[in-house]
Amino acid sequence: MVAPQHSKRLAAAARRRQILGVAADLFTAQGFEAVSMADIARVLGISRPAVYSYFACTEAVLGALLEEHLGLLWQHLEAVIPARSSADTRPAPGFYARLFTVLLGQPGTLLLLYSGGGPVFQARRNAFLTELERRLDLQFPGAGRRPYQMSVVTQLLGSLAFFAVQQRLPDAHLLAETLDLFTRGGMAELARAEPVLKVSVT
Amino acid sequence: MVAPQHSKRLAAAARRRQILGVAADLFTAQGFEAVSMADIARVLGISRPAVYSYFACTEAVLGALLEEHLGLLWQHLEAVIPARSSADTRPAPGFYARLFTVLLGQPGTLLLLYSGGGPVFQARRNAFLTELERRLDLQFPGAGRRPYQMSVVTQLLGSLAFFAVQQRLPDAHLLAETLDLFTRGGMAELARAEPVLKVSVT
Repeated sequence: MVAPQHSKRLAAAARRRQILGVAADLFTAQGFEAVSMADIARVLGISRPAVYSYFACTEAVLGALLEEHLGLLWQHLEAVIPARSSADTRPAPGFYARLFTVLLGQPGTLLLLYSGGGPVFQARRNAFLTELERRLDLQFPGAGRRPYQMSVVTQLLGSLAFFAVQQRLPDAHLLAETLDLFTRGGMAELARAEPVLKVSVT
Repeated sequence: MVAPQHSKRLAAAARRRQILGVAADLFTAQGFEAVSMADIARVLGISRPAVYSYFACTEAVLGALLEEHLGLLWQHLEAVIPARSSADTRPAPGFYARLFTVLLGQPGTLLLLYSGGGPVFQARRNAFLTELERRLDLQFPGAGRRPYQMSVVTQLLGSLAFFAVQQRLPDAHLLAETLDLFTRGGMAELARAEPVLKVSVT
């Protein structure tokens, strides 16, 4: 038999989950900034105060959603990014296609990550891409030699993955192949180019 | 002496310009979907009906802003994209850096183009990138051979230019160089790779 206290907690957890689900749908359908706490309450058929008892504002709802979604995404990404002990300084063929495919495997997360337009929202997206950049740099230390080299790769991955998900490309595997060849060619060209001098010569 | 009718038209044109200026600032500061017609009226210190007498909704304001901004951006881009008669099928060194620098030269346009998160807004941004893709394809017909090859280039250009403007990178010229080398290397690799078969063999 379930104790009343326990079933209350269950009900609260289920309600919180409902709020997050509805909010994610609204954010991606209308753009994050277009959605109010009242909109979320209306879709769920509950009062506004009921929604406020779970979250202080839509930014807090977004924070909880992104924490959950990105936590899962990192688990999948970590399975693809090799362990730190790797002696290679250059990713194996197909590496960028695999990274891209992992991103495509979490369409809801991508739609959420690109659903807002305000600067605070942009900062959240950049935080994710910067973390991806940091982890790729750690794995392939030789690869980040040129200024912004890894920013180029992560911005390309992020924007193309969003593009593929948003456009529902039926042949995204072809885009993955093109992206992989393109990125490997680009990285090889940067490795061949003269390094940029970091000190000024007087 | 200025006729009353003429000065009225002048005043109307000036007011319209004020509305567009304030709206552009609000859209990029808060995210497009966060801004209402009432917000625009409030900042200008005029009534809501006064704003509505110029535009039916914020989408109409955005439409007018983008038409103006993108018209100017295309003029600058056309100066960089070579004439159609060009016999080269591959862009000259520095071409992508120049394209990128033109984009960076219009920071307000980029901030506007990335200020919204809703699907309608995303569609507008994609329309711009698709048109850029089409024009690049026209100039360098051999370059678009691989599926999504030019989408990779335009998504990379767009997202990196927005990144540089939004982060106010002080050394964006280094990013331009990296981007140019990277893109040329990527395109060369795609040209070397086996073409994808477009017909199925039975």
